[in-house]
Amino acid sequence: MSSAVDNEKILQFLPFSSVISSSFWHKLTQMKIDVYALNDEPVEITGYYTNQSISSRLPACLNVDYSSFENRQVSDAVGTNGILCQGLLQNTNTLEAFKDINKQTAINKCGEQIWNDILSGAALSNPSLLTRFLLLTFADLKKYQFYYWFAFPTLVFPSKILLNDDPKEVDKVLTKEELLQFQQAYDEFKSSYGQSAFVVEKNTELGYKCHPLKELANLKDIMWIGFCDPSSLPTNPGWPLRNLLALLAHHHKERLVGLSILCWRDGVRDGQRRVGSSLLIEIKDVVYPGETDSIPKCLGWEKNERGKLGARTVNLSNSMDPERLAESAVDLNLKLMKWRLLPELNLDLIQNTKCLLLGAGTLGCYVARTLMAWGVRHITFVDNGRVSYSNPVRQSLFGFDNCLNGGQPKAESAANSLRKIFPGMMSRGIDLRIPMPGHYVTDAEEVEKDVQMLADTIDEHDVVFLLTDTRESRWLPSMLSAYRGKLAINAALGFDTYLVMRHGQREPWNPGQVQSEKSKGVMRGALAGRQLGCYFCNDVVAPGNSTKDRTLDQQCTVTRPGISLIASGLAVELMVSVLQHPQGGNASAEISTDAMTTVQQHQQQELEKKEAINSSPLGVVPHSIRGFLHRHQQVLPATEAFFNCTACSPLVIQRYAEKGYAFLAEVFNDSDVLEQVSGLADLHKDIATIEDWDYPEESEGSTD
Amino acid sequence: MSSAVDNEKILQFLPFSSVISSSFWHKLTQMKIDVYALNDEPVEITGYYTNQSISSRLPACLNVDYSSFENRQVSDAVGTNGILCQGLLQNTNTLEAFKDINKQTAINKCGEQIWNDILSGAALSNPSLLTRFLLLTFADLKKYQFYYWFAFPTLVFPSKILLNDDPKEVDKVLTKEELLQFQQAYDEFKSSYGQSAFVVEKNTELGYKCHPLKELANLKDIMWIGFCDPSSLPTNPGWPLRNLLALLAHHHKERLVGLSILCWRDGVRDGQRRVGSSLLIEIKDVVYPGETDSIPKCLGWEKNERGKLGARTVNLSNSMDPERLAESAVDLNLKLMKWRLLPELNLDLIQNTKCLLLGAGTLGCYVARTLMAWGVRHITFVDNGRVSYSNPVRQSLFGFDNCLNGGQPKAESAANSLRKIFPGMMSRGIDLRIPMPGHYVTDAEEVEKDVQMLADTIDEHDVVFLLTDTRESRWLPSMLSAYRGKLAINAALGFDTYLVMRHGQREPWNPGQVQSEKSKGVMRGALAGRQLGCYFCNDVVAPGNSTKDRTLDQQCTVTRPGISLIASGLAVELMVSVLQHPQGGNASAEISTDAMTTVQQHQQQELEKKEAINSSPLGVVPHSIRGFLHRHQQVLPATEAFFNCTACSPLVIQRYAEKGYAFLAEVFNDSDVLEQVSGLADLHKDIATIEDWDYPEESEGSTD
Ligand SMILES: [Zn+2]
Ligand SMILES: [Zn+2]
Repeated sequence: MSSAVDNEKILQFLPFSSVISSSFWHKLTQMKIDVYALNDEPVEITGYYTNQSISSRLPACLNVDYSSFENRQVSDAVGTNGILCQGLLQNTNTLEAFKDINKQTAINKCGEQIWNDILSGAALSNPSLLTRFLLLTFADLKKYQFYYWFAFPTLVFPSKILLNDDPKEVDKVLTKEELLQFQQAYDEFKSSYGQSAFVVEKNTELGYKCHPLKELANLKDIMWIGFCDPSSLPTNPGWPLRNLLALLAHHHKERLVGLSILCWRDGVRDGQRRVGSSLLIEIKDVVYPGETDSIPKCLGWEKNERGKLGARTVNLSNSMDPERLAESAVDLNLKLMKWRLLPELNLDLIQNTKCLLLGAGTLGCYVARTLMAWGVRHITFVDNGRVSYSNPVRQSLFGFDNCLNGGQPKAESAANSLRKIFPGMMSRGIDLRIPMPGHYVTDAEEVEKDVQMLADTIDEHDVVFLLTDTRESRWLPSMLSAYRGKLAINAALGFDTYLVMRHGQREPWNPGQVQSEKSKGVMRGALAGRQLGCYFCNDVVAPGNSTKDRTLDQQCTVTRPGISLIASGLAVELMVSVLQHPQGGNASAEISTDAMTTVQQHQQQELEKKEAINSSPLGVVPHSIRGFLHRHQQVLPATEAFFNCTACSPLVIQRYAEKGYAFLAEVFNDSDVLEQVSGLADLHKDIATIEDWDYPEESEGSTD
Repeated sequence: MSSAVDNEKILQFLPFSSVISSSFWHKLTQMKIDVYALNDEPVEITGYYTNQSISSRLPACLNVDYSSFENRQVSDAVGTNGILCQGLLQNTNTLEAFKDINKQTAINKCGEQIWNDILSGAALSNPSLLTRFLLLTFADLKKYQFYYWFAFPTLVFPSKILLNDDPKEVDKVLTKEELLQFQQAYDEFKSSYGQSAFVVEKNTELGYKCHPLKELANLKDIMWIGFCDPSSLPTNPGWPLRNLLALLAHHHKERLVGLSILCWRDGVRDGQRRVGSSLLIEIKDVVYPGETDSIPKCLGWEKNERGKLGARTVNLSNSMDPERLAESAVDLNLKLMKWRLLPELNLDLIQNTKCLLLGAGTLGCYVARTLMAWGVRHITFVDNGRVSYSNPVRQSLFGFDNCLNGGQPKAESAANSLRKIFPGMMSRGIDLRIPMPGHYVTDAEEVEKDVQMLADTIDEHDVVFLLTDTRESRWLPSMLSAYRGKLAINAALGFDTYLVMRHGQREPWNPGQVQSEKSKGVMRGALAGRQLGCYFCNDVVAPGNSTKDRTLDQQCTVTRPGISLIASGLAVELMVSVLQHPQGGNASAEISTDAMTTVQQHQQQELEKKEAINSSPLGVVPHSIRGFLHRHQQVLPATEAFFNCTACSPLVIQRYAEKGYAFLAEVFNDSDVLEQVSGLADLHKDIATIEDWDYPEESEGSTD
């Protein structure tokens, strides 16, 4: 339309500079973990800029922060904090994906959207559609390293704007009085429409009046087209003017030449509103791109710190609260498991499960660690030992320092360790000796207190792990867990064998309920969880005083070290499988007369059984797992609760329910009482010979 | 013989007070662990007392210390340190056994021995036979608590000795000149005979002369019977006189009345020898016990601190060097395993095995812990990561503190942790990135250095654990381990599956040796260790660049937490089984087409196979263990080395042996090179279709 001359004044725009509040990253982290998961589709966010800067040393900032994720009406663009802009956030799952995104394609797509909003007139009604932005991110949440790249798409249409003169500050053009009048007109418009662009009309009667852009066609006395200008430079307007000019060039091409633009800057300094540095520019001529595609060229990727087109990074690991960093890092790891592999996994259920670990020895330490890795936050240890020098190499929550000066109490020391591993743990240690059948009680008052404490503690927890070093010390917690209907997980070690089992879980004892029915037989080759036996169900004698007169090597059960890791890992996986099973503790266990069949057979069977046995998303939920390291064998026996069991039978539970501690006191002083109450004694009379138990008797996990 | 009168002067003896040097307990601990094991038969030790005390405030001490365990000639009783006594140490295995020992029976037995030595005259020739003692101990080596009880058996024979007068100090009786003369006579006797009792003759010609006790019968001018007196009381002789009087009463009853006894005290004060406080006592009358058993009554159990007959305890945990305490406590635990369960276990072999752990992630941490529990002292980690916030809940050698400020380097942090657990560890961390096939090398010089470092490190170790988080990062160490003939143990995890395997172990590469023979077929359903494959033997493509463009969840392999404990436990147990196998790395592995048969079948098979397969004392030594937690299955496939393996085949090894880093550089830049060199590429041409690998492909253990 006009050829360039040497001293032509070309209109140039100050690009946006992005500003990301660290609160944005925190919120993104949370959204990634809680909402987006592995979804990397673009999502809508908002940003904002202000036209309030009154210092020309500040760049034109486009800000995003935690509130960017809120669902906001961008049509009400001019809020108290500034002018809202609609943005599109694409958070990739990998750095490679971040890099691989075709940047031109992405910005073109956004440009197309803006162009369509121009063509359709939507942008006339809602000028904030012109200030869309793109934000591309990759959040490396392991390192709290964030990669990001903003684009502020702008259409190259017109391709060049020539000015009549250098931009002038509005207070050089208007009188103070006039400026004040305009200011009032603008405020009125702002409170009515809240839009970031407007038409300024001035007629002699009414003075200044601001109108929405869409009324432009009907207005005659147009003085200026105004827009909220993020720039504070005395020489250049900010980026939003570019797409605004594209809009005007499309809809009001004829008005463009000669048009005056008000770059409205509306700040406060020294308690005074300052609008005088708003710029006025007057368009002398306009150059349009040659005949090209239907959509104008689009550009606007932000340059990085080095002035190159490229992404920026920020690392927040130092600025964030380390405990919260740990919190979300641990959370993320588990969420990844869920997102990727097990969408049906209920992580909250695991996290909220309160676990009581009886014994803070080799098994207790490894079980606690495995629970933590699963996200369990509540772990309580019960142990009455102190950390000794031989412990740390086997008991993974203790170090050499814990052994000094006689050794720290194990339960407390283990609980402290958990918090040193992960500050989010709610861990507690209780120094308590578990009273045992047949272990004569000398201080009855003390023991009664201990029993009460143990019973209360079991009440406060959801799962009880039996990890002590003697068979007898498992009796009381087994009985109390059965009485209170808690899930009990048992792990016991031999030299190179292990037993990991869940006790049959029934409802808490209710005297009104008939619980003392004998077995009703077994359906479909599986036992319901409530039908399963406990650790003592296979015993035909009461747990007695087995620690008496054991030699040094027997006192400390010697096991192949690998065994304790295997048993601990299995014990926790068993608990998690139960928790994730739709029927929880009542999950059935297959009765496998021959657990050792081939993988292929099992795979077939699995299909067949899927209907019959409602398995956990984590697979089968066996009653017990017995392993024999000597030949690397493992069997999964499931056995029914024994009507005369000394620990879980209704006969024993009922006696405890009725007599309370008085019954226990008898048992502690003489374990034969248990055989009487459970009916075992009668059974002994009935049976001449007793079948031998099939497996080598395991010794117990040691807390020594 | 005479009736008691009111003011009769009854001879009373100062009992021994036992003094146990802490060096005694240290030596006992060592003897218990290294020699006695569970043997609780009494063993001979020595103690000593001195007659050198010159202060009456000191008790008559019988001392035992580290030297008590040395084999010493007690006949030379009077040494420079004092008078040696023969003792019998009985160290029980339990506190109960300690308590249960019948104290009267024990002391009677010792009394009988003394009496027999009196009757036989042996005690006349060797008076030290009269000062036997008993020491009963129980060493609770977990708590460094020692229970002990001394007995100084003395025969009540005669039952009462009456004196003419109170004991007199010898310098009140002899002139200075006379005392000096006697002293010279005693010194002569001491240097000739070194006995603790003697006969003092005085005749006018020769002056004083001391004779051995056995010459008593032949001597006439007997002035005194002397003995080295541990007492320094001015009123009472010490305990040894009692049995000496019994000896005299039996052999020289007729001489007893009127006999003078020299209680010889021979000390030094202010640099001056002092013998003047030696006592002289004169026997007025003797009362014998009524006709009783053939053996006189025996007494002499030491009273405890409270003046009661009872045991004493001492706890050395505070006085001992804690690091040495830890050392011996850890040692003891392993020794107990050997003593009680596996006498053929070679613990030294394990302790001296140098283990290199490639990867200090979940697997690396648990493997290291399990190795420590087995007594391994040399552990080196290789990892190039830093500890991040998500690590500690899964990686058991790290805590929250290790994550702060960007995280400590993992290898070093893990190595430090081991020493905090057990100061005796020789642990090291190497921050090194293992170069991988197909991962283009940008800084060749750096990578060449890393390769050299890795090769040197593998050379310095005996066992290489492959625990990194990608398949490709296992290639170089697999190849180098094969080249150097090291035992390689591999552990890899899937979400709920694991693979633990040993690589076939052959001799270090020797170009002169023909190694490139193809399989010679399999004998007896088992493969020798050298015939077994490696991790890559089942692959039909070279390890490539699999980490490229993995999403967040794939980058960090997500596994059920229990899996890593199970795999780590199994990996270490596999290593220990190999080490303990008579054929070591060449131990055969059964080829089990159906590893899942019943326990019963296996038990039968085991008997049958005992001859065929020379199993480790720890049981079978499988080639690999594949576990599937979903159904709690485990199989033990053994596969033969693949002639075209990209990692362990002679073709690849030979190329490396010839070209060194130049070959590796090619591989790092393009993994196809491996397919060429190994012959896989040719094979691909030959085979139209490739059978699918039967098991779900496992992902790898993560160090993230
Ligand atoms: Zn039961
Ligand atoms: Zn191989």
